[in-house]
This record gives sequence, structure tokens and C-alpha cells, in this order.
Amino acid sequence: MALDELTIIDRFFRPLAGEGSFGLVDDAARLAAPPDCDLVVTSDMIACGVHFLPGDPADLVARKALRVNLSDLAAKGAKPLAYVLGLGLPAGTGESWLTAFAAGLRADQERYGLALLGGDTIDVEAGPVVSVTAFGAAPGGRMVHRFGGRAGDRLYVSGVIGRAAAGLALLKGDAGPWDALAAPAKDALVRSYRVPEPRMSLAPVLAEFASAAMDVSDGLVGDCDKLAAASGCLAEIHAEDVPLPAGLAANEVVLARLLTAGDDYEILAAVPPGREDAFRRAAAAAGEPLVPIGVLREGTGPTRAMHRGRELALGGRAYVHGRRA
Amino acid sequence: MALDELTIIDRFFRPLAGEGSFGLVDDAARLAAPPDCDLVVTSDMIACGVHFLPGDPADLVARKALRVNLSDLAAKGAKPLAYVLGLGLPAGTGESWLTAFAAGLRADQERYGLALLGGDTIDVEAGPVVSVTAFGAAPGGRMVHRFGGRAGDRLYVSGVIGRAAAGLALLKGDAGPWDALAAPAKDALVRSYRVPEPRMSLAPVLAEFASAAMDVSDGLVGDCDKLAAASGCLAEIHAEDVPLPAGLAANEVVLARLLTAGDDYEILAAVPPGREDAFRRAAAAAGEPLVPIGVLREGTGPTRAMHRGRELALGGRAYVHGRRA
Repeated sequence: MALDELTIIDRFFRPLAGEGSFGLVDDAARLAAPPDCDLVVTSDMIACGVHFLPGDPADLVARKALRVNLSDLAAKGAKPLAYVLGLGLPAGTGESWLTAFAAGLRADQERYGLALLGGDTIDVEAGPVVSVTAFGAAPGGRMVHRFGGRAGDRLYVSGVIGRAAAGLALLKGDAGPWDALAAPAKDALVRSYRVPEPRMSLAPVLAEFASAAMDVSDGLVGDCDKLAAASGCLAEIHAEDVPLPAGLAANEVVLARLLTAGDDYEILAAVPPGREDAFRRAAAAAGEPLVPIGVLREGTGPTRAMHRGRELALGGRAYVHGRRA
Repeated sequence: MALDELTIIDRFFRPLAGEGSFGLVDDAARLAAPPDCDLVVTSDMIACGVHFLPGDPADLVARKALRVNLSDLAAKGAKPLAYVLGLGLPAGTGESWLTAFAAGLRADQERYGLALLGGDTIDVEAGPVVSVTAFGAAPGGRMVHRFGGRAGDRLYVSGVIGRAAAGLALLKGDAGPWDALAAPAKDALVRSYRVPEPRMSLAPVLAEFASAAMDVSDGLVGDCDKLAAASGCLAEIHAEDVPLPAGLAANEVVLARLLTAGDDYEILAAVPPGREDAFRRAAAAAGEPLVPIGVLREGTGPTRAMHRGRELALGGRAYVHGRRA
């Protein structure tokens, strides 16, 4: 990097520092959960060439790094508190990149109500590499887990599945039905890939109603596998019920791709049958309606993804950033 | 990386997971400070080619990544609790590297009494890059800061300064007085660079007696600058009082280099005059004697590094990993 670490901290990161950070002049920070809350910790790392592309705007890289973590907090029923930032910068990273990166952090700190607590800025041989550890507060004893789902619970998903995958395909020039969309629709898909929309307003709804939840980051089918396995169940989902990008003419091959692609950052939740109505009302009132896409059943094994009464042929089950599984 | 993330978690990291990690099957962890303690958070990142060398043994890389964080906790008066791990692996990272890396983590988890809470494993274009966020518990209201020192406080340092710098010089083939040492002494210096010894047993001593403290990671003189500036003082140190590697014939140029080089991971502490005797006794009883090397004075500005009554000529003031400042 062209600037030294102290200059970078002074100019770009100190203005972002919050309570317990001691203005970033100390070696460590102090963190406290609010009374009657559990402190929830999550950590995600993103790297250039793997989770974002070399030309991606730096403010969006910053926001993606934060939001992939915020999405985890939301899924656990937690409200964001603070985060620490590890930033690896390759030689030649300029002021303009850092200025935009810090502006992206500031925008999302204000939007989501959290502050920078500390971190580390280092040189790396290739990057940028951005590591965020985020802290949230869940109502005491009410943190939502992947485990906790039971046979009979309905599976719900927020938002739209496959937007980020279609956006990445557009950025990479992979041919598909997304090519037939109008320019504004294409731009919206690309933006979904670059900047996910974590469903923060669902956190209290999940803490109250969900038996299990997680964010969908590595492909819906594979993430259903994970939630079901952690809950000792088998998931069955119905592809025709999964909300897909508007106007996309998806044949079964495309459908299978969208259901196993990454970067959705939507919420997957299991809800006991007796609580479904209240859950749906609370989610709608929070401005984030979810739709039922399947059910947890007795048993174990990979998720059954049905499409019009038949099992959908899937290439892989989960998305692995940097390559296909 | 050759193995997928789930396999890596299953085989290498789940056995290291502790309380609140939910066996690494969840998206997030739960963290609680012990009663009457403050939760202290620190985060440091190390990268191949910058903080460690490509041929460095993976177990030592793991231990260094942990220990540079533990050293911060010790300096803040905190006892280690847990950590999260962000691991960026380049293509072709093999099982043997991961096996050794996990063994290094396990050894130091056992040695320092902390457990893995969660994390993320990703592909990176060059690395490895290791990001650790560590959590510790300081006695409530007794976390030690860089600020808090006052004019008249004596400056103390633990252990030996310059061992890691001499070890790195040996690894890189930089000529110097270290070349004249016997092989076992050289090996010990190289090991100091690869695996620092965080002074954990000093944590309660610092919490009780120090007005300010930090770990020495970026060069003693530059770190004295930081502690003094945060405390609104000017530091004066006496180079002849700084403990240097045994048997090293250091002229003034070498001395200046050792006092401004990185990776010492010793403790720098300010202690009020009336408490010095008790501090020294407590540190010695903890098995980590410290020696006085200078004093905080009224004023501001860069540390005065004296040598035999004259100001020592310094090349730079602080070490920047990856290049000289």
C-alpha cells in the first residue's frame, strides 16, 4: 500500500470508530452486550478475484464485506452492535480506493447502526482481502440456530433467490436467460451480486418465531442441507415456490443453477406449523415478507428439490466461491 | 485450496471448537465475559511474504497468528477466552499444511487456555492470509490502555528486544553481528521471529500496577512514541538499559536497528513511581521480570533514545511489516 498504516487509520478509519474503540489509539477494544442480551459473533472474509471482481467499486466491496456478516447476525435474531476490520491491501492501493472504501463503511454503519471497534491493516501480495468480525445482540436465550428445526416445520425464504448468481453471470459474460432482460433489470442483478441486502428487520421476527434459521450464502439447496442436517431432519423444497428474479425465463438447467448458486444473502427459516400465521404477519409488518418453499421431514440425507412433482436434476449442491463444487 | 471448506472445517477445525461455538455448525457463535470482567477484543492479521516467509512451518504460522493477538491481550491486562479465525488459502494448499496448521492452533489453545469460536475459510489469490480476532477478560474497569501514563512514570520492558529482528536478518541473509553467534543461539533468534512468546502471566500484574501498557510489535522506539503520545507525554529511554540478545556485539547502527525493528512482542509498561517496587516483585513472582528503560516526561514529540549520554541516531522510528518505514 502507498500510505502507511498509521496514516490510513488516522484519515480513513478513526472517523468510523465507535464506543469501546478508544478512538483506535489502543491495541484492543472493549465490548459489552446490552443487558439481558446474548453477544453474537460472526466472521466472514472476502477476497478480490474470489468474492468480488478487481474492477468492483471500493465502496461496494466495503459494504459487501460488512453485509455478508450482518446477514448472519439477522439470521441469528441479532441486532448489529459493532465490528472489527482486517484489511489486507496489495502494493499500489491508492488513496482514492481507501476513500471510497471508508465511505462505503460509513454509509452502512449509519444505515445499520453499528460502529468500528478496531482492526488491522496489512500489506498482502494479492488482494484486497477483507476480514470482518461482527458483533450483535440477541434477546437473552433467544439466539436462533441452524439446529432447532423439527419434522413438520415449514421452510420459508425471504426476498428473491438467484439474483446475485444472474448478476455474476452477466459480469462474467456467461450466456443465459438474463441476457434477454432490459438494461435496468440487468443492472439490478449486478448490484445484487455486488451489494447484498441483509434482512436486518427480520432479526426480531426470527428470534420470536423461527425454530431454526440461517442466511442463504452458498446456494439454497446446499444451505437447506445444512439447516436440515443440523436439525436432524431432511428438507424437501418445491422449486416452483421459490421466488426467482422477475422476467427470467428459467428452464430446468437454469433453475438448478440458481438454486445452487451463492451470494443470495436471503433468510432461510424453519417455523413450527402452529406459529406460521403469526410469523408471516410479523415478517410482513417488518417489511420483509417470506414465502413457504418446503418442509422439514423425518429422516436424513440431501434435500429433495422437487419441480412440478419430479425431482429436479442438480449439477452440484452448493456454491463454492472461487469455483464450482 | 484442494479441500472444500466443509471438509476443512470437519477435519481440522471442529476438533478445536469450544463453548459457544456450537461445534461450528452454526453461522455465528455466542460469547460471554465472565462475571465482573470486561470483554477485550483485539484483531491482527498476518500474510505470507509479509509477516512470515513462504517456507515457514505451518504450525508456527498458526501459533504466530494466535500469539500476536494474545500478546495484545496480555498488554491490556486480559486473560484469553476464545478467538475466531479467518483463513485465506491459495490454490494448492495441501492437507499436510492444514494438518500442521491445526496442530499449531491446538498446541497453543492448550498452552494458553482458549478455544476456537468460529471463522471463515476462503480461497485467496496469494497467501496464506491469517486473520485472528481474539477475546479476553480483564478485571472489570481494569483494562490497561496505551493512554493513562503520566509524567514521572517509569517505562519498563519485558524479556529481550531485537531477537526477532536478528532472527529475520539471519533468515534473509542480512549480514550483521548475529552471524558471529553459535548455531544454537542463531536458531533461538530465528525461532523468536517465527513464534513470539506472549507474556500472558504479566496480564494480572499490568492490570494491578501499570498506568499504561502495550505490546512492542512495531519497534520499541516507535511504540514508545505511541504510548507516550496516547498518554500526552514524551518518552525518554536509555538504550544501554534495554535488554538485547545475549552475546550480540551491537554497535550504534545495529543498536538503532534493533530498537526500531518489529516482532518483539514484549510488554512496554508505564508504572507510577510509588508502585514500582511492588510491580517489580509481582512481575518477578509471575516469572516475567521487567527492567526499567526510561521514563515519561512532560511534553510531546518523538521519544528521546539516549545512548551513553548522547541521543542515538535512528534510521526510522518504527518497523513497517513488508518494508522499512
